[in-house]
Amino acid sequence: MSDAKLQTVLSALPPVTRQLDALPSNGPAPDGNFVKLNTNENPFPLPPIIMQSAVAALKCQYLYPDDDNISLREAASSTYGVSRDQVIAGNGSSELLGLIYRAFLAPGDKVAMMSPGFSFNRKLAMIQGAEFLEIGCQAHSLPMEQLLSGPAKDAKFIMLANPNNPTGTFLPISDIERLVAQSDRLVVLDEAYVDFAPDHGLRLINRYPNVLILRSFSKSYAAAGIRVGFGFGHPEIIGRLRNIQNVFNMNVIGHAVGISVLAHRGAYAENHKHIKDERERVTVALSQLGFSVTPSRANFLLARVPAGQDGSWWQAALERQKILVAFFPDKGLEHCIRVSIGAKEQMDAFLAAAGDIAGSLTVPSSKGREASGSASSLR
Amino acid sequence: MSDAKLQTVLSALPPVTRQLDALPSNGPAPDGNFVKLNTNENPFPLPPIIMQSAVAALKCQYLYPDDDNISLREAASSTYGVSRDQVIAGNGSSELLGLIYRAFLAPGDKVAMMSPGFSFNRKLAMIQGAEFLEIGCQAHSLPMEQLLSGPAKDAKFIMLANPNNPTGTFLPISDIERLVAQSDRLVVLDEAYVDFAPDHGLRLINRYPNVLILRSFSKSYAAAGIRVGFGFGHPEIIGRLRNIQNVFNMNVIGHAVGISVLAHRGAYAENHKHIKDERERVTVALSQLGFSVTPSRANFLLARVPAGQDGSWWQAALERQKILVAFFPDKGLEHCIRVSIGAKEQMDAFLAAAGDIAGSLTVPSSKGREASGSASSLR
Repeated sequence: MSDAKLQTVLSALPPVTRQLDALPSNGPAPDGNFVKLNTNENPFPLPPIIMQSAVAALKCQYLYPDDDNISLREAASSTYGVSRDQVIAGNGSSELLGLIYRAFLAPGDKVAMMSPGFSFNRKLAMIQGAEFLEIGCQAHSLPMEQLLSGPAKDAKFIMLANPNNPTGTFLPISDIERLVAQSDRLVVLDEAYVDFAPDHGLRLINRYPNVLILRSFSKSYAAAGIRVGFGFGHPEIIGRLRNIQNVFNMNVIGHAVGISVLAHRGAYAENHKHIKDERERVTVALSQLGFSVTPSRANFLLARVPAGQDGSWWQAALERQKILVAFFPDKGLEHCIRVSIGAKEQMDAFLAAAGDIAGSLTVPSSKGREASGSASSLR
Repeated sequence: MSDAKLQTVLSALPPVTRQLDALPSNGPAPDGNFVKLNTNENPFPLPPIIMQSAVAALKCQYLYPDDDNISLREAASSTYGVSRDQVIAGNGSSELLGLIYRAFLAPGDKVAMMSPGFSFNRKLAMIQGAEFLEIGCQAHSLPMEQLLSGPAKDAKFIMLANPNNPTGTFLPISDIERLVAQSDRLVVLDEAYVDFAPDHGLRLINRYPNVLILRSFSKSYAAAGIRVGFGFGHPEIIGRLRNIQNVFNMNVIGHAVGISVLAHRGAYAENHKHIKDERERVTVALSQLGFSVTPSRANFLLARVPAGQDGSWWQAALERQKILVAFFPDKGLEHCIRVSIGAKEQMDAFLAAAGDIAGSLTVPSSKGREASGSASSLR
């Protein structure tokens, strides 16, 4: 095959895509009975009535899905009390995030994210050839100065998650409203975890044209595998995002599950109560093991590991015990792990493994004990 | 709400998105028992074994789908005899078309499509701010001169569908190979309808780095509502498309149905035979009604309507009889309708309605007859 011809084809790519690598293919994820607490899924089945809608929709498999997601958007508009022109539906909110980056960023433009934040945003900025600014944010206050007149002043939009990922912290909506009111730029408020929090920002979209709110059914509605997300905002912005959106972006199962969840949100009350209860239980138990846990309003915990090892070490130690948790190499997170809140049995398994590992750090290994013949429980 | 603030936000959009309109929301499609022959669906249920895979996958609804579609891509690589790095999987081939436009076109670039072709391409070019060139193509030969040294010379890539939509015509793969061999640009070969045709171009990807082939499970595998498509090409091009692709672009049902179809393609033999048989029967029957039908290698027919009315008139007349067919206002297609090949009962209903309408054009209406009292069957 002609290599010169390949080079000619690649040279036709615009500069931004030309500089991207071809993605290497990883093999499938390893099998094995892992307790999966690394990606904030909600490990419960769909409520039966929602499962029935999904199975029924499989019988429409040969028909193209509803154009422009109109039935799902109408259902969301009625559930959330907004107009259908204020709603866009996505193949997960990740699709909608991608659309926002595409719509707002040309090569060389800037975008700002509160940091630490969801690292996927960095990749989206890179694909657009945009500069990604990370603005350090304390858990309980927004750096207004930096956002309004500091380095983020020229950003085309500001990304903010509430509750934040990976910290789990929650900012009062009034603080976010102050930012939106004082800024002339778009503020994208990612509320993927908001159903586990005490308040939400949806009321802002009727007050300000420069706020765009993202929701996901992956976390609170146990539908990460179905891919359902929403964006809410001003019709002039939502309508442009819909205009550049891929046709038939969701399949008939995504539509059916989305519409059925919207009609039966109450069926998740016990699920949400369970997750909040476990969140508190695991927070206390981890503290007793020497972790320092950030109080969380999401379905995960960011925990600073006990002194002596870093987060990466703990992630590997837990993986050897068949427990998967998340680790982020970002500055300030090197000594943390992020643990999803799942079913009670999963959390018991995690706590047992964490207890074992913590124990092995504070007492000498049995081999060591044999060698020295002494107890040194303070090590 | 501040209109000035909205204008400031919109003015932050790059020129291409700023010039786009906000898409208006249409209402849901009208209800009613239409015979739907306008979008080339394949109106049969999934084979039972594939349906079982789909139902089983619903139980993984809470887990994120397989990263980078790796299991589905491995299944496709094994079925089609290519490497997994030569395969990208899409939420329908429409997603993959969109990725190609995004990867290869910056504002002001050119792209060329054989015309008449699939009008969705025009929209994709517009979203990129690219110039869309339509190169007239006779049914049975490629305009090599125009593609290699004529107006399409500077196009970043050339779009070509085989069988072509909306004509249904099929070019010998050797003709396409000649174009790919002689051109240094990427040739995108959309094979959405190829399972109804006598040959396909997949062998070209191991010979030339400048060809990219698209496949869809919407037509031949009755899965338009599930959204499954593939792209095949050189790993350096496929890997860049995967790099800019939306994360978790397909849901667990798309993966399960895709993998199961690949394992059980033989289960569609009767389906494909039925469609080819009906295609011939309806071609003959329409000719007897005064239509001029382009011989088709796809699951639809392009039919020039009898003299006296145009395609748009026929589309409306058929819709009044609850039959939906496609009409394209493009130059050269004004006197045509495109009719999908569906189940026998659907085609019988279409032929009966077409016969009625043709009859009403050649004999006076009953009211006219009552008034004049004369027969004038030649009118």
